[in-house]
Amino acid sequence: MNWDSLFAARTKHMKRSTVREILKLTARPEVISFAGGLPAPELFPMERIQQATDTVLSERGREVMQYSTSEGMPELRGLIAKRLSSGKFQVNADNILITSGSQQALDMIARVLLDEHDQVAVENPTYVGMLTSWKPFDLQFSAVPTDANGMCVDDLEILLNNAPHKVMYSVPTFQNPQGTTLSRERRQKLAEILVNHNLPFVEDDPYSALRYSGDSVPSILQFEADLRGSTTPEGCVMYCGTFSKTLTPGLRIGWVAAAFPVIDKLVQVKQATDLHTSTLTQFITYEVARDEAFLDGHIAMLRDVYRQRRDLMLQTIEEHFPHEVTWTRPEGGLFLMVTMPPHLDATEILKQALAQDVAFVPGDGFYIGDTGRNTFRLNYSNARPEMIVEGIRRLGVVLKANV
Amino acid sequence: MNWDSLFAARTKHMKRSTVREILKLTARPEVISFAGGLPAPELFPMERIQQATDTVLSERGREVMQYSTSEGMPELRGLIAKRLSSGKFQVNADNILITSGSQQALDMIARVLLDEHDQVAVENPTYVGMLTSWKPFDLQFSAVPTDANGMCVDDLEILLNNAPHKVMYSVPTFQNPQGTTLSRERRQKLAEILVNHNLPFVEDDPYSALRYSGDSVPSILQFEADLRGSTTPEGCVMYCGTFSKTLTPGLRIGWVAAAFPVIDKLVQVKQATDLHTSTLTQFITYEVARDEAFLDGHIAMLRDVYRQRRDLMLQTIEEHFPHEVTWTRPEGGLFLMVTMPPHLDATEILKQALAQDVAFVPGDGFYIGDTGRNTFRLNYSNARPEMIVEGIRRLGVVLKANV
Repeated sequence: MNWDSLFAARTKHMKRSTVREILKLTARPEVISFAGGLPAPELFPMERIQQATDTVLSERGREVMQYSTSEGMPELRGLIAKRLSSGKFQVNADNILITSGSQQALDMIARVLLDEHDQVAVENPTYVGMLTSWKPFDLQFSAVPTDANGMCVDDLEILLNNAPHKVMYSVPTFQNPQGTTLSRERRQKLAEILVNHNLPFVEDDPYSALRYSGDSVPSILQFEADLRGSTTPEGCVMYCGTFSKTLTPGLRIGWVAAAFPVIDKLVQVKQATDLHTSTLTQFITYEVARDEAFLDGHIAMLRDVYRQRRDLMLQTIEEHFPHEVTWTRPEGGLFLMVTMPPHLDATEILKQALAQDVAFVPGDGFYIGDTGRNTFRLNYSNARPEMIVEGIRRLGVVLKANV
Repeated sequence: MNWDSLFAARTKHMKRSTVREILKLTARPEVISFAGGLPAPELFPMERIQQATDTVLSERGREVMQYSTSEGMPELRGLIAKRLSSGKFQVNADNILITSGSQQALDMIARVLLDEHDQVAVENPTYVGMLTSWKPFDLQFSAVPTDANGMCVDDLEILLNNAPHKVMYSVPTFQNPQGTTLSRERRQKLAEILVNHNLPFVEDDPYSALRYSGDSVPSILQFEADLRGSTTPEGCVMYCGTFSKTLTPGLRIGWVAAAFPVIDKLVQVKQATDLHTSTLTQFITYEVARDEAFLDGHIAMLRDVYRQRRDLMLQTIEEHFPHEVTWTRPEGGLFLMVTMPPHLDATEILKQALAQDVAFVPGDGFYIGDTGRNTFRLNYSNARPEMIVEGIRRLGVVLKANV
């Protein structure tokens, strides 16, 4: 069988995710990995999850093991809706679709909205997992430049005035890969642009609960609704969230919050894709998360630990990286991004780092266009403090030998 | 927001699944439903699942809650490979991709193989869940007629000689919706056709473990390999399996077994779609299924109970349905199909049946082309014996009032 001649045209835009392939290389226990976006497993609330699982299996076991609705467990949808509501802005359970992680939400939104050759605006750099999913749809990507305050919204407006765009994708808060956050002023301006252009906007927000410093800012979902004078999600923002970073990734529970016509269409895609998300993991997630005092306390603990790791990584970088290198200083999330002098190639540096048993993700996969080869992403949530210090020290040695 | 004007062209081929929408109507506890494809929840091996869950959470809890590989849990892939192997034909773990139910396998295969306007051969009628997933790819479906021995393979050969086809989809064993099985002779002929045409073939096989009478027949995967003289899956068959019918659906664990180049491409789609299937539910499934003596004993018990239900339904139909009506007599699986006189419309009959608190699925959704309106599908695995008798009796009254 000559399979290559049989694969669909869209497969030309597919490749194995660089990040996930690097993660395999780093499976050796002696590697200090800053590569993945893995939460710290020692912080998983295992006791609560075990209790919740016992409760769910003993009280609703047969229901939990049966087929269920494509929309997701009603109580879980209700809880997510409640937690997204604030003041007059009220999200309904009907505005929520449960997905198998927020990656699936991104993928399903593409299937619902994107035709071949559609123009799509993204921050540059942007989340590589979205690119993995969306590139096979054969799109035109417009790159919106970014700085320390997130995307430059004035540049977005120029892009939109020059050409019609079908959708914009963004991680406005503690961006992956840079860790930067769109400022309050720019959120207001962005909401105005979205409303003026009626531009569908995917707000990918896995990290906003993990803020370690600075003042929290409302979501684009909220800004846009306020501007429209809406008290429910009925505008152009599709908000993607997840329990992967606040509870655990292995349960694979994410969601989309959006206007009902979008949810209605996404449910049809969900039926076609995998019928529904695991009944068991939805019930466990609900059983843990419905104790909101526990959930909020757990998140506060995560913030404390991750804040220390962020601070430690920033401080160690300051001590060990050569002065030719710059880096972002995130107020939350899991990542920071390093920029080396233009003549350095992060893939080459990675080889040298792996020889010293240290791993990171080269930045070029996150960029639209042929740039970013001199950048790389560091994760600070997964490695323990002593490993952060040792790994960054080794990386400093590698960098100093190259600059 | 005028969302209708924003949705992608492929959404015109999407609609909510008829079966799943009918299932919602039948949620009232007084309804006797023959509509879904639900296994009997009272037969779920809850004790084993609880034990397995305890073991998995206490022994490998943090691993189970973390991100994992897109290919799936290695031990589970190995177990599935072993159970698909027979004699000289050896399936490798590398030939297996774990999916979120076999619905996801169908959906991912489409993404890997199908371009717009591709010609796809299917049995007529065929599984509606495949149509839900594949129709948005804007395909041309060729209908292969079926009879009591499954698809008429001579007609398939004529179709293939007349026009190039990209892929064929089939449920050769205990077909959904008809319950019929492709005979051994036809399997041999089908394998010859596939090898001659190098035609990619999706063998969707959720039911073959559930045989209640007659002699078992090897899979098309096996027939095709034997014909090629292959001792591993390296031909054109992509075999989709699931634990939904043999253990429980709520865990959402299915798989594809295929040649490595196909698995390799499917892994890329899996990464884009949802990163990986729930780590927890994969580990639980493995922990239950690795005790193969238990698993096989459990399946034997299912076969006994479902055999009685099938026999009871067939016998009650014989007693209560009018002689103008015909039906299939499956040797296994979950369904049989009823054909009424041509002037009757199953959707209209369903309304009358629901007024008597009995539900089924009208057949037209399973057909290519505008036929099958006088057919409907009955499930016999989910309802308890006394409900089967009562429901079929009521259905007989409705049918007699209409023929």
